[in-house]
Amino acid sequence: MEVEQILHMNGGEGENSYANNSLTQKEAIVKAKPLLEQSLNDLYCNGFPDCITVADMGCSSGPNALLPTWEAIDSLDKICNRLNRKPPVLHSFLNDLPGSDFNTVFKSLPSFYERLRTEKGHEFGSCFVAAAPGSFHARLFPPNFLDFVYSSNALHWLSQMPKEPMSEFDIHRAYFDQFKSDFSAFLKFRSEELKCGGRMILTLLYNDSFHATSPGEPALLVIKDMISEGLIEESKLKSSNFPIYAPYVDEVKQVIEREGSFDIHQLETFHVSWLEGFVENDNEGLDKYARGKYVTRHVRAVGESLLSSICGDDAIVEEIYRRFAIKVTDEILEKGRGAFANLLISLVKKL
Amino acid sequence: MEVEQILHMNGGEGENSYANNSLTQKEAIVKAKPLLEQSLNDLYCNGFPDCITVADMGCSSGPNALLPTWEAIDSLDKICNRLNRKPPVLHSFLNDLPGSDFNTVFKSLPSFYERLRTEKGHEFGSCFVAAAPGSFHARLFPPNFLDFVYSSNALHWLSQMPKEPMSEFDIHRAYFDQFKSDFSAFLKFRSEELKCGGRMILTLLYNDSFHATSPGEPALLVIKDMISEGLIEESKLKSSNFPIYAPYVDEVKQVIEREGSFDIHQLETFHVSWLEGFVENDNEGLDKYARGKYVTRHVRAVGESLLSSICGDDAIVEEIYRRFAIKVTDEILEKGRGAFANLLISLVKKL
Repeated sequence: MEVEQILHMNGGEGENSYANNSLTQKEAIVKAKPLLEQSLNDLYCNGFPDCITVADMGCSSGPNALLPTWEAIDSLDKICNRLNRKPPVLHSFLNDLPGSDFNTVFKSLPSFYERLRTEKGHEFGSCFVAAAPGSFHARLFPPNFLDFVYSSNALHWLSQMPKEPMSEFDIHRAYFDQFKSDFSAFLKFRSEELKCGGRMILTLLYNDSFHATSPGEPALLVIKDMISEGLIEESKLKSSNFPIYAPYVDEVKQVIEREGSFDIHQLETFHVSWLEGFVENDNEGLDKYARGKYVTRHVRAVGESLLSSICGDDAIVEEIYRRFAIKVTDEILEKGRGAFANLLISLVKKL
Repeated sequence: MEVEQILHMNGGEGENSYANNSLTQKEAIVKAKPLLEQSLNDLYCNGFPDCITVADMGCSSGPNALLPTWEAIDSLDKICNRLNRKPPVLHSFLNDLPGSDFNTVFKSLPSFYERLRTEKGHEFGSCFVAAAPGSFHARLFPPNFLDFVYSSNALHWLSQMPKEPMSEFDIHRAYFDQFKSDFSAFLKFRSEELKCGGRMILTLLYNDSFHATSPGEPALLVIKDMISEGLIEESKLKSSNFPIYAPYVDEVKQVIEREGSFDIHQLETFHVSWLEGFVENDNEGLDKYARGKYVTRHVRAVGESLLSSICGDDAIVEEIYRRFAIKVTDEILEKGRGAFANLLISLVKKL
């Protein structure tokens, strides 16, 4: 399965759009802010450049797409205020797969620049937002082009499904091998694109054993149920799994050290509830599954393109999401396991 | 009227899409190729850079959007072949207004890179296509960022409608003033973004007196007819004209010289028939207005967003285009006046 040709967050601004269902991802970006600011401070103070070129790998669409840019501007403003210097120009590149909905993000740019002016007093020309469409598992920029790379909630996506493992016992190995290969390539390509002393702030899901690491777990339970009930023909499924791998912290460290281009400057973990942003209202209070439905809309905004390609049938996809809301409530939320475990890493390119 | 918030070529790939109705614009890009190659040759031989950064201002969507990038690669391949050097990396930025359909262009990137590999033997990493959404009447890039600027069929668009002139006599002056202001701003901003010795190749419509300079002329005739027949209420029209100005050659020279950032390296003119790419088939042969309908689809792909905003009524827009096919046949094509008069200019940033 060619993940890169299929995967994209739901576009537009409708009920199931990523734009309207991405509060957990927003929270992860917000939680990474202090480390982002520290990293930008170290970068900026190492030469006080007039222009800083940053790239957000896997920016997705919707309001989150411009949030890291906003936070970078906010951080640089604070840093330069402390130093009594004029903030550098920010050249900010949004990256995602070519099938992602860039149009909606671009249409929001005029109001983004207007907010910069009214809320931050920036003149036009202090920030230029550009885009670099393509897979971050390949090269995206000329050599020594970037000062800073950011990525949130993206690196646990694999570039392709692992080869079908021989046995249940080999599944973890097959997934880890694919992650190792993808993440190593990411580090290698970014190190080629980053200038000397360049930095990265990465947030990705990790495996913390207790929490359900990704909503793929309940989704697979639903699919298994439907196969056993004869509603899905197993032979027609293009895959029996999802191209996501939430690594253990030690695995991530191992890949970074073996690849060798970056020093680990800092490493933290934090959790974001799957219910982040959920507001219980009176009508929903009567519905036991309101929380599960909320999680479902989020999961759908991210995974629908992929699930459609795996199942090939819209009615089945609808039924999977209907059952998912129930399954996720009963099996995950009721047990207090519904939280994304996020690993936050600050890296510096070696000299 | 805020032209920049309204204007965009018709998106997607349908019957009236710009993607399927842009052969005249393609021809203008093809005609500019020799001068593009000469200009890139002069640029490259002035220091043999490892990477050349180019921007296409007003790239639109559809297959034309990537054509200048392809031609630049083709030119650099030839140049480097002659010199027995490895071609530089091309970092190519597509620019258009934020409302333009970038998604369709981005989706075609994987096949564009694949063609580069199979037809030109380029390894991945020889060319990176990026986007810089925004108005080219403002700044789009950090200072001293670009080596080369390209623009085809875009600079005759005005950033706004001229203030309503006092009399018929003042119309030309009002339009020229707006063009002067817009084109001067374009030159100033590009000179700030271009590196020292940077170059530009610009193609825009000019006024050659004989040819109908833009399809706005027959469109206005149609609108006048419909007003006099009571089908359009003049008071409800948001504008009685289009934000396009095809300047005289001397006017263009005058603006460049007064603005002062660029030397004119070369200046040529050429014509592209409104019927470029039209193939008369047997069915259409029976229809006197087949040629007019062909022109109408082209005009519609470019101007529909604008006309809809001026008229505010889809049925009226449909009727305008129906009558346009007839008017353009009888008044323009039959008289041999249906050709775009293009001015092609090569500029060098002054030291």
